[in-house]
Amino acid sequence: MAATYAVIEEANRPEIWISLRDQQTVSAEVTSVLERAAAGADLPLAGLLFAVKNNIDVAGLATTAACPAYAYQPGADAVAVARLRDAGAVVVGSTNLDQFATGLVGTRSPYGAVRHATAPERISGGSSSGSAVAVALGMVDFALGTDTAGSGRVPAALQGLFGIKPTRGMVPTVGVVPACASLDVVTVMDSDLARAALVAELMRGPDRRDPVSCRRSSEPTSPITRLGVATDDSLGALAPGWAEAYHEEIDHWRDAGADISTVDISDLLRAASLLYDGAFVAERYTAVGAFVDSHLDEVDPMVGSIVQGARDIPAWRLFQDEATLAAHQLRADDLWRQVDALLLPTTTWHPTLDQVQADPIGANTRMGRYTNFVNLLDMCALAYPAGEVDGLPFGVQLIGPAHADRRLLEAVDG
Amino acid sequence: MAATYAVIEEANRPEIWISLRDQQTVSAEVTSVLERAAAGADLPLAGLLFAVKNNIDVAGLATTAACPAYAYQPGADAVAVARLRDAGAVVVGSTNLDQFATGLVGTRSPYGAVRHATAPERISGGSSSGSAVAVALGMVDFALGTDTAGSGRVPAALQGLFGIKPTRGMVPTVGVVPACASLDVVTVMDSDLARAALVAELMRGPDRRDPVSCRRSSEPTSPITRLGVATDDSLGALAPGWAEAYHEEIDHWRDAGADISTVDISDLLRAASLLYDGAFVAERYTAVGAFVDSHLDEVDPMVGSIVQGARDIPAWRLFQDEATLAAHQLRADDLWRQVDALLLPTTTWHPTLDQVQADPIGANTRMGRYTNFVNLLDMCALAYPAGEVDGLPFGVQLIGPAHADRRLLEAVDG
Repeated sequence: MAATYAVIEEANRPEIWISLRDQQTVSAEVTSVLERAAAGADLPLAGLLFAVKNNIDVAGLATTAACPAYAYQPGADAVAVARLRDAGAVVVGSTNLDQFATGLVGTRSPYGAVRHATAPERISGGSSSGSAVAVALGMVDFALGTDTAGSGRVPAALQGLFGIKPTRGMVPTVGVVPACASLDVVTVMDSDLARAALVAELMRGPDRRDPVSCRRSSEPTSPITRLGVATDDSLGALAPGWAEAYHEEIDHWRDAGADISTVDISDLLRAASLLYDGAFVAERYTAVGAFVDSHLDEVDPMVGSIVQGARDIPAWRLFQDEATLAAHQLRADDLWRQVDALLLPTTTWHPTLDQVQADPIGANTRMGRYTNFVNLLDMCALAYPAGEVDGLPFGVQLIGPAHADRRLLEAVDG
Repeated sequence: MAATYAVIEEANRPEIWISLRDQQTVSAEVTSVLERAAAGADLPLAGLLFAVKNNIDVAGLATTAACPAYAYQPGADAVAVARLRDAGAVVVGSTNLDQFATGLVGTRSPYGAVRHATAPERISGGSSSGSAVAVALGMVDFALGTDTAGSGRVPAALQGLFGIKPTRGMVPTVGVVPACASLDVVTVMDSDLARAALVAELMRGPDRRDPVSCRRSSEPTSPITRLGVATDDSLGALAPGWAEAYHEEIDHWRDAGADISTVDISDLLRAASLLYDGAFVAERYTAVGAFVDSHLDEVDPMVGSIVQGARDIPAWRLFQDEATLAAHQLRADDLWRQVDALLLPTTTWHPTLDQVQADPIGANTRMGRYTNFVNLLDMCALAYPAGEVDGLPFGVQLIGPAHADRRLLEAVDG
C-alpha cells in the first residue's frame, strides 16, 4: 500500500489523477478491510487497490468528468464502485479522462494530456486514459473506466492491459456521468485477467434505477470455438507491423484448435458511422448540452463543438437512424449464427501527442474504427494484449453477442 | 359474393371505400380459390372476403393513405395481405381512414368522414374507419386495419367488433405506409373471434425486411387467470352508462372464476402522454414529413399541423423521452408479475360528428386514453364487444404483455 504512493510519486505523472485520496485514509481502510477478512468476512477483493475514472461517482471525491466547472460532490458511490468496496476493494483516487468521456485519445482534458505509460511522446488513448496508465504503471491493482465508443478498450490496448467491456446493462450505470446514456458501460482494466473477471462479476447485476440493467438476458451456453476474422482489405490502414501481429494472433487461435473463418465486417463499419455521423451523437447533448451551452468558456473546445454540434439534430432523423441500426442489428445477429465471436485489432494505430494535435478529429476517428459499432449493436468485448510491435503493446479484442461476457473471458483465459 | 356488392350498393356509404374492386374480378378470384380448395389445396380462408385499410398495399389498387396526392401503385401486396391471399382470402377493396392513420375519429379524410355503421350522426372512430364499418355492415367477412395509438381498436369497439392488435413485429409491416414505423401494427377486425384469430395466425411470422418481426420472442405459458382492472377515479370521464357496463364486464369475469384485482394505471397514462406531448410524435415526420412539407395544400389541415409540428423536435429530447419510457416499461413489467392481463374500456366515449368538429384535438385525445400506451409499452391487446349502452356497442380490451397474443384470444374465446 505504501508502495503504491511511492510509485505514484516516483512516476511524476500528475496528469493521471484528478483526485488522489490521502495515504493515511487509504491505509486505514486497507487495514480495516484486511482485519474484517481475517475475521471471516466474505471480502473477495480484500485490500485490492483501484482507481476510478472521474466520471464515476466515488463518495468523498468530486466528480468532474474532467471539467472543473462541472464538478459536483456525489452523495454516494456509483453502484459499480459500491459493489467493489463492499467486496473489500479500496479506492486510491479518481483518474483523468477525455472530458465528458468524449474522445479516444486522452488529450482532451484541462487536467493535462495523459501520456503513454512507457512512451511519453505518445498518447495513452482514451477516454479512460488515467485509469489505464495508473494500472500500467503499477499504481493500482485494477481500475474502472467507461466505454461508449471504445473508451475502455482503446487505452487498455495501448497500455497492454486486459479491458473488459461488458454487455450494456450488465453493470448498472447509476452514478456514472452519461456520455451517451443508452450506450455507456462501466469497464475494468487490469494486467491480470482472472482478477479482472472477478471484478466484473462482482459489479454485475440489476439495479432498478438503470432499466437496461433489468432486462432479461439469456447467456450463450456453448463455448467459443468459431472465430470470425477480418480481411486485410476491410481492416483498412493499420500501423506498421500491426497487420502481421494480428495474423500471428489468428494463428495462435488456429493452433489452439479454433475454427477460423473470414467474415465481412463492412456492415459493422457502416453501423459504426451512425455513432458520430448520424443522429446518435445527439445523446451527448441530452447528457451535458445545457451545461455546455452555459459554460462554453470552461469546456474543452473540441468537446464543446461536438456536443453543441448535436443540439439541432432533429428527432425525425434519429428515428431514421434507429431504423437503419435495427437493420444492421439483424445482420449482426446473422453473424452470430456463423461465428461465436469476432477477433479484431482493438484500434488501428498509436499516434504521438503531436499527431493528435495536428489532426484531432481525424486521429480520433481512426482509433475508433473497430470499437465504435460494438455498443451500438449490443455486443460485449474483451480487449486483451497480443504481444508487442516495435517495443509497444499491440492489442486485440474478442467481440461477442449480448450476454456472451463470461464466454469471452473463458475463451481468452483458456 | 354477389350479396356483398348488393349490400355495398344498398348501404349507400361511398365514404367507406377508397377503391372497390370490380365485381367480376372478385367473383372470378373467389371461384378460382374455391375450385383449388375443392381440389385439395390448403386454403384455410378459401373464399372469404376482406377489406384492406388503404395504408396497406394491395397490388392493383393505389395506396393513398387517404391523401390523393400521396397515391402510388404498389408493386406487390403488403406481406400481411399476401399471406391472407395465399390462404385463399379475396380482397374486395381498400377502405377509408384518417389520413396517414393520424386520428382516432374517422373524420380526417378527403374521401369523406366515415359515419358510424348504425348511428350515422356519430363517428365511426378511426383511423381504421372504413374497415370497421365495412365489417359491421356485413360487406366483408373481415378487414385489416392498423394500430399505432388505438386505430385498430377504437373503431372496432364503436362498431361492436373484435379487434386484434398484435404485439409489435408479430405481423410484418412490410408494405404498410408508416404512421410511427416503430410502433405500427397490422390489426384484424371481425364479428367472429375464431375467424379473426385464424386470420391473425396466418399473418404471423418474421420477414427480413421488418427487423422487429425477427426479434426473438417467448410466449407466456400460463393461461390468463389474474385480471387487473382500473378504479373509477383513474378511468376518468366516461360516456354515460359506460362505467356501469365496464363493471358488468368485470363481474362476468369474476363470475367465470377470474382473480380480479385493482391496479394503478396512472403510470400507464403518463407513458401514454409521451406519444403526442413528447418527442415520439416526430416519427410521423420521419414517415411523411417531406411529403407534407411539399404538398401542404393537399393534406388535411389537422394532420398537416400534427406532422409539421413534429419537424423541429430535437433528437436530444427524444433520447430523454426514450429513457423515460424505459423507466415506465420497467414498471409495466412489474405489473405483469401481479396480473396476467388488464381489462379496460377501449375508449372513453362515442362522439357525434358535430362534437368532433367542435373540438377536433380534444375529442380525439379523449378517445385514445386507454389505447395510446399499449404499443409504446410493447403490449398486445384484444378489443372485444361487451354489450350495448343506449342501443350502441360498448367495447372493452384485454391487454397483455408482449407475445401474450394467443393467450388473450384463448381467454376471451373461452
